[in-house]
Amino acid sequence: MSKFTVGVDLGGTNLRIAGFTNDWQRLTSLAIPTRTREGPATVLGDMASAIRHLIDQCGGEGELEGIGVGSPGPIELPAGRLLQPPNLPGFHELELKVELEALLNLPVIIESDANAAALAEAHAGLGREFSADSLCMLTLGTGVGGGIILNGKIWHGMNGMAGEIGHVAVWPEGMLCNCGNRGCLELFASATGIARMAREAAAEGRSPKVRELVDHHQPVTARHVAEFAEAGDPGSLGVYDTVGRALGLALADLVNTLNLPLYTIGGGAAAAWPLFAPVMFRELERASYVYRLTQPADRSRYEAGKTNVFPAQLGADSGLLGAAMVPRYVG
Amino acid sequence: MSKFTVGVDLGGTNLRIAGFTNDWQRLTSLAIPTRTREGPATVLGDMASAIRHLIDQCGGEGELEGIGVGSPGPIELPAGRLLQPPNLPGFHELELKVELEALLNLPVIIESDANAAALAEAHAGLGREFSADSLCMLTLGTGVGGGIILNGKIWHGMNGMAGEIGHVAVWPEGMLCNCGNRGCLELFASATGIARMAREAAAEGRSPKVRELVDHHQPVTARHVAEFAEAGDPGSLGVYDTVGRALGLALADLVNTLNLPLYTIGGGAAAAWPLFAPVMFRELERASYVYRLTQPADRSRYEAGKTNVFPAQLGADSGLLGAAMVPRYVG
Repeated sequence: MSKFTVGVDLGGTNLRIAGFTNDWQRLTSLAIPTRTREGPATVLGDMASAIRHLIDQCGGEGELEGIGVGSPGPIELPAGRLLQPPNLPGFHELELKVELEALLNLPVIIESDANAAALAEAHAGLGREFSADSLCMLTLGTGVGGGIILNGKIWHGMNGMAGEIGHVAVWPEGMLCNCGNRGCLELFASATGIARMAREAAAEGRSPKVRELVDHHQPVTARHVAEFAEAGDPGSLGVYDTVGRALGLALADLVNTLNLPLYTIGGGAAAAWPLFAPVMFRELERASYVYRLTQPADRSRYEAGKTNVFPAQLGADSGLLGAAMVPRYVG
Repeated sequence: MSKFTVGVDLGGTNLRIAGFTNDWQRLTSLAIPTRTREGPATVLGDMASAIRHLIDQCGGEGELEGIGVGSPGPIELPAGRLLQPPNLPGFHELELKVELEALLNLPVIIESDANAAALAEAHAGLGREFSADSLCMLTLGTGVGGGIILNGKIWHGMNGMAGEIGHVAVWPEGMLCNCGNRGCLELFASATGIARMAREAAAEGRSPKVRELVDHHQPVTARHVAEFAEAGDPGSLGVYDTVGRALGLALADLVNTLNLPLYTIGGGAAAAWPLFAPVMFRELERASYVYRLTQPADRSRYEAGKTNVFPAQLGADSGLLGAAMVPRYVG
């Protein structure tokens, strides 16, 4: 009998749920706002009823293999307890797994959203295309998430908190981060960080384009900054230069520490790859002698036995697909 | 029939060889100078004849299980080819495994010295004592070596170069390292780095004790600096403050990335633990929120499920013992 799996992507803004076939074809999906302000009980109730609805809809596809939920971190795993998640205020110490299982009367496996995205890239994206069974993925979104896949499996560490690469310091004497550290990668490579740096550039008179938005009380987004940089706005170009340097330094540490065959960068802000990649590679090559000893002759092609760095393949849905993969690969 | 294993520690200064029983008791050992200046052929010949001599001596103990060699890195593994080893000038691209096997007519397994030391701590030191099957070890010697053990096995990465933590940048805009990067951990936490920082402190008038050595044309060693710090010499105290900050920053990155239960610091310069550990823990706690979420209530006792940081247990012989363990755990 055929089987299907349900994946849930619990975001700070949207809650997305989808059913997938055995070979990861999407069956049906739905997206609703995450009613964070109403508190955890409301969000849990919304999740449970949406999951039930989806299971009903997919029932004709066979047996339910499992339910996987990708959640913003940090989360204690496999317990599935949230710990001070910055993107879900008020959800501290929420027993996500226990409470969702009680509502559904079905087993649920929780995973961090960044780990789920990395799992999807490993089994249905770049990892599958290149037969690379280990990789590290950075997801540039509101924050910077990290996921490490070793020999096909998520490296969780002892309590599920491995891969917090967004809080690796790239400039340890730099700006203070919410996490308490200084100069975290997340401050310089997330969509939030890009918008902040652009506003700083505007305030210092280096970005007429961003200044115009600010003067008109318009929000500044990473997408705006990328457009302005493409049009030659000096401040916006400078921002993406910083993004590239920060990513290059973080990758250099990862390459020296883990010596993986594949590193990939996803999330919305990774769409600006052409703007930051040249600087990123220049920094990576300078800062990591392991990279220099293992760099591919041609960066645009995957080479086995070399250190390959590519933009992620699966786009915005990797977190949702990865959540659905969790019951098979983690559970 | 009982078995024995031969371990070889190929150092830049000394070549040490020992036989070990099945349960890692040392049978017999010998140490000879590494005749680096005479070139690789001489050193290989010395190794081969010392290994043969040792096998003869241990012959009564049963069957030879295997021969493991710990070598300064970087080494391509499992091929066992040296790549620009800074502590073995002239040994670039030496096929250590192939050439040693040809001389001995026996299989040999090569490992990096820092990985071998970490393996020994895992299976006969702290890891065994605490039943921790994953750990990361930093070895503070001429350089700073790193070894990562995941689920009881060395994490080699794709070509044996994982664990190059000595070249993770702790101050990316700092001093230039031989590896091409800036502000590497090794510059601030190795014995060489400690001596250099002490001479700098003396030149700036902050260390009367070190100044005295320099004025008398005496070499400055990390051990001197530790003694002077214990006696209250301000410049020497400042040096160990920097050692602690650098180690704390490097550990913070490792804790955020890998979330292991155990981190350990060995090598000669780790003997000054009381001088650098308080600053190291202060930095680690500040810079890693994963550490803050998982720190033991009492740092002096191992706690399961927490992030434990301890001085290594096995002392200077861990590299030799670890080399002997390589045939069983890696081969």
